[in-house]
Amino acid sequence: MSEKARVLVAGASGFTGALAAQIVHRHPRLELVAITSRSDAGTRLDRLYPRYRVPLELSELDLDSLEDVDAAIVAYPHGASAPTVAALRGLGALVVDLSADFRLRHLPTYERWYGEHGAPELLEGAVYGLTELYREQLRGAELVATPGCYPTASVLALAPLAEKGLLADVVIDAKQGVSGAGRGGGDAMHYANMDENAFAYKTEGHRHRPEIEQELAALGSDVPVTFVPHLLPLDQGELTSCYAQLREPIAKEEVQALYAERYAEEPFVHVVDRPPGLRDVRDTNECHVYITVEERGRVLAFSALDNLWKGASGQGVQNLNLMLGLDETEGLR
Amino acid sequence: MSEKARVLVAGASGFTGALAAQIVHRHPRLELVAITSRSDAGTRLDRLYPRYRVPLELSELDLDSLEDVDAAIVAYPHGASAPTVAALRGLGALVVDLSADFRLRHLPTYERWYGEHGAPELLEGAVYGLTELYREQLRGAELVATPGCYPTASVLALAPLAEKGLLADVVIDAKQGVSGAGRGGGDAMHYANMDENAFAYKTEGHRHRPEIEQELAALGSDVPVTFVPHLLPLDQGELTSCYAQLREPIAKEEVQALYAERYAEEPFVHVVDRPPGLRDVRDTNECHVYITVEERGRVLAFSALDNLWKGASGQGVQNLNLMLGLDETEGLR
Amino acid sequence: MSEKARVLVAGASGFTGALAAQIVHRHPRLELVAITSRSDAGTRLDRLYPRYRVPLELSELDLDSLEDVDAAIVAYPHGASAPTVAALRGLGALVVDLSADFRLRHLPTYERWYGEHGAPELLEGAVYGLTELYREQLRGAELVATPGCYPTASVLALAPLAEKGLLADVVIDAKQGVSGAGRGGGDAMHYANMDENAFAYKTEGHRHRPEIEQELAALGSDVPVTFVPHLLPLDQGELTSCYAQLREPIAKEEVQALYAERYAEEPFVHVVDRPPGLRDVRDTNECHVYITVEERGRVLAFSALDNLWKGASGQGVQNLNLMLGLDETEGLR
Amino acid sequence: MSEKARVLVAGASGFTGALAAQIVHRHPRLELVAITSRSDAGTRLDRLYPRYRVPLELSELDLDSLEDVDAAIVAYPHGASAPTVAALRGLGALVVDLSADFRLRHLPTYERWYGEHGAPELLEGAVYGLTELYREQLRGAELVATPGCYPTASVLALAPLAEKGLLADVVIDAKQGVSGAGRGGGDAMHYANMDENAFAYKTEGHRHRPEIEQELAALGSDVPVTFVPHLLPLDQGELTSCYAQLREPIAKEEVQALYAERYAEEPFVHVVDRPPGLRDVRDTNECHVYITVEERGRVLAFSALDNLWKGASGQGVQNLNLMLGLDETEGLR
Repeated sequence: MSEKARVLVAGASGFTGALAAQIVHRHPRLELVAITSRSDAGTRLDRLYPRYRVPLELSELDLDSLEDVDAAIVAYPHGASAPTVAALRGLGALVVDLSADFRLRHLPTYERWYGEHGAPELLEGAVYGLTELYREQLRGAELVATPGCYPTASVLALAPLAEKGLLADVVIDAKQGVSGAGRGGGDAMHYANMDENAFAYKTEGHRHRPEIEQELAALGSDVPVTFVPHLLPLDQGELTSCYAQLREPIAKEEVQALYAERYAEEPFVHVVDRPPGLRDVRDTNECHVYITVEERGRVLAFSALDNLWKGASGQGVQNLNLMLGLDETEGLR
Repeated sequence: MSEKARVLVAGASGFTGALAAQIVHRHPRLELVAITSRSDAGTRLDRLYPRYRVPLELSELDLDSLEDVDAAIVAYPHGASAPTVAALRGLGALVVDLSADFRLRHLPTYERWYGEHGAPELLEGAVYGLTELYREQLRGAELVATPGCYPTASVLALAPLAEKGLLADVVIDAKQGVSGAGRGGGDAMHYANMDENAFAYKTEGHRHRPEIEQELAALGSDVPVTFVPHLLPLDQGELTSCYAQLREPIAKEEVQALYAERYAEEPFVHVVDRPPGLRDVRDTNECHVYITVEERGRVLAFSALDNLWKGASGQGVQNLNLMLGLDETEGLR
Repeated sequence: MSEKARVLVAGASGFTGALAAQIVHRHPRLELVAITSRSDAGTRLDRLYPRYRVPLELSELDLDSLEDVDAAIVAYPHGASAPTVAALRGLGALVVDLSADFRLRHLPTYERWYGEHGAPELLEGAVYGLTELYREQLRGAELVATPGCYPTASVLALAPLAEKGLLADVVIDAKQGVSGAGRGGGDAMHYANMDENAFAYKTEGHRHRPEIEQELAALGSDVPVTFVPHLLPLDQGELTSCYAQLREPIAKEEVQALYAERYAEEPFVHVVDRPPGLRDVRDTNECHVYITVEERGRVLAFSALDNLWKGASGQGVQNLNLMLGLDETEGLR
Repeated sequence: MSEKARVLVAGASGFTGALAAQIVHRHPRLELVAITSRSDAGTRLDRLYPRYRVPLELSELDLDSLEDVDAAIVAYPHGASAPTVAALRGLGALVVDLSADFRLRHLPTYERWYGEHGAPELLEGAVYGLTELYREQLRGAELVATPGCYPTASVLALAPLAEKGLLADVVIDAKQGVSGAGRGGGDAMHYANMDENAFAYKTEGHRHRPEIEQELAALGSDVPVTFVPHLLPLDQGELTSCYAQLREPIAKEEVQALYAERYAEEPFVHVVDRPPGLRDVRDTNECHVYITVEERGRVLAFSALDNLWKGASGQGVQNLNLMLGLDETEGLR
């Protein structure tokens, strides 16, 4: 491909959309042709987010007069995304969706957690965009459902065990920075409320749990998952601590070798030799994974990533690169 | 007791010692007669910690010329504490030890995790100072080993289940603020390193695990515990998320009723109706506990406390109140 | 007064109102009889602000059915306060207003900065509630306009010089925590926006400037003030750095003696011997002041206080104590 | 130059040295051939600073066996730098010094603030590395004294006025993140001490004041400066608020036009239209400047930069680019 692909970012005034716009804007092989927002149309993005330095004005999405675009990244809320994705696909654009609307393959499961689906006919053709697991399907994909930070971090932490069918029981204690709650987090996300604070939420059942179970099963371990998310007083970051019991015991050296081999060639997933810190991965598309076995025999898997990058917009562009036949890492280092 | 008890705080230049000094200083029934420190002798405590407003000068501990004291709170590092505790007991003072030196009842277990013990002959007489569990023994105690924040938060979160012998498997994911690492935390605790950071540590085995197992067993559940501590970017706070499998299933309403009843009369332990936040308990001696059952049937217990208060110095004074025959809450509201 | 005074807090769901409710609730001589809020009526305050532990339900203010109250603390937005204050005064209640509505004595100045005044007839009788400067008038006052954190911190830092008529030129660089922007701070106060951030605002003219000039003139120094506020990434705190040129030079020792003497008897204003830190005064009603002269001859005055306490609700109760004939410090230590 | 220049970073285990190593490591035209440290020799830099991803081992600096290097960046403490700089110059290497040792042109001034000078014979040949002001001299320079964050931010904020000889009186209120105190900041920089804190320091005279005065005089305004630094609870960032009185009044539009024109061509200095936030410039080599006139006629100049980037290592590489005949922005976007 000699020319730059023309890319639209829809929903660019939210946290993930704004970062997606920045990554596309700086990308050597992509051209950011439009950024849209209902709430902030008329405002330049570099006024809302000076740090992203994107000197374009937000406009309302108008599909009728949409200029020719090769691809779109849609950063809409869950539920609101599907109709727009369908319309953009109808115009022939490749679509990377950052919402949950095409992540769950089983429609009733989607409906239980999110309500009615806006474009169920597209579910079957959507590829799940956890890049390291679906790379081959992503190369030819036309619609990609990029997973959020919780499933990305959790599944990357557990995939090598899941692929071997080893998982018998899994507890995931996930900890996330405040940007994960989105720009519309409301009162609870006011600095004066989150400062010096940390707490669990949605403890009785979070909608990312079925998605994690779906993916572990797809890899080879159909196992019930206990998943509890927490909020931390920091802006960007997702740390998962996974506590796994296996079908058979495994030695620390063995499991560490398994992980080292599994991710040896991955450009963005790094197996590290001590528990990763969120600061290590901030503002990068990397996921750091540490695997060990504790005294009582439980396998512990830790992963750290930036929820806005590898947990959303960075991974979205990683997928878009593959869809367009580009190098997967382009624009992401 | 009509007069104020005369209290020494040894090791008052560290985080827990300094707070202990403050609580004693403001206590209506205690008199702070001396504060000691090897590293900061000659400095006034309100210069090191202006926020505590204790206008006394630190001096080196000199047991020979020690004025008459009724009681001492010892805030020394693990291992260094035992000899001083022994000497103070020899002078007839009641002692509240904030170190780990008298927490483990089994000497070989202590030696495995901490090295040689400096006063093993005192182990048997020491009372474990988790107030809500040992209140009666504490009333007459002469030496109390106050547990740290990890065991206090973990055991309070699980005690009602442990007492019924219900626990079959326990994972504790503990998250702590930076003050828990102590004043001597070194480079890693520099603001520029902890800011925007969070990570697990001592994942292969932390020395508070055997202490937690000891206490759960004492309550009635001899169960192996997986315990993983994490550091969070905040100053004070300890949040534990406990994932328990029980010997038999229990309904959410039943377990919530069990907890409500168990802690109904406790002045400092409150069963709350949503996952507690660290901000709710900051600068207080309270522990907030939330218990629920998640979709997959696991029992989830959350507890939040201030690691310097209920996780150290506050609980130390709570114990001292009982030892002196005072109201347990005196000076702690 | 043998019984507790019955106190209403109106606007108790905002940051300052909620703290006012807590202080009154714990006060040994006051009884919190009602807390009101338009936006959160029906919610218990300890659900909105668990840390304040006030177990009362918010209701809409209904003046017709208002139970008998001796006094009210009104924590409404500027402009909205005056009519309610007037109505409460009409019912005979003593009123402590935390808004700006009765702080500026000159009506046209008020109108320029805030718009039309809702109860101009009460302006003349209102006492300016900077306690240390108006203590005698406050004892008999029926309506007190408690200044906010910027004027309180600035004027306390400069009062000893202003009283001597020494000020020739003043620059005030003020820095405030995020709670100062109030609960309705909007997007800009989202944790993810304020984290790692700091900036000046309203640089061309802030409405607290005329109030500071009014008070310095009342003390004896009619001097133009340059005042620039900044926001810092912390929750509570107000730090002012004042750069003053005097009508005649003064030696460091002399000005330090002047300040020491001026504030020697003050229970809440402390002259300290190094620049104060916000952490020193957090969650207290204290104001710490440091005065010095720098190499180039400029007099530097620094003050630190907690914007919610001495900068709002704490000072409000300090004033209420005086209005009710109580000890000024009651309920504030 | 067709090959990469070979660069040594001496003192790479401190905050500025580590970042300098990272920038050089990623730089398309530079090769990082060695990184040295006395305290951490033998450790890989990506273990000390995982986020910088520099996979080299630190070694002790051994000038005798030093491989051929074209240039060195020296990140030593003030005072310790001069002898090493002299030795490296003796070996023919171009040197960018990040310490204060060659910033003050007047030897007695240096000696007053820093003590004896280790290589006074090099003072005259050193070029002051505030790139935007000394660009032409930097192109041929062999030794560059890169200013720190306080002078860089202050002088960039005031230069357009200083060049016109307009400054009559200047107050600089500077606010800095904790990384500015360096890795060896000690107890006071412990997370638990800086959290929720902010304070002024060195209020009676800071050694960056004479450096700022030197540079304003060199530009055309020989004016006494009041300079007061503050620490803020964030990791990276430098915000200066400058309060200037001019020799003659100036209109807001006029001074804004002056600044816009002065910095129109600068790749890293941007004149912005509202007070800049630290978050806007974090992890960049940019300096944002806002200029206005407040109601009382004072000119207000604000600047924001990242103290580790434009305030130290980023500017160091910007200078090195010029010394090597490269594009000034190479490796810095």
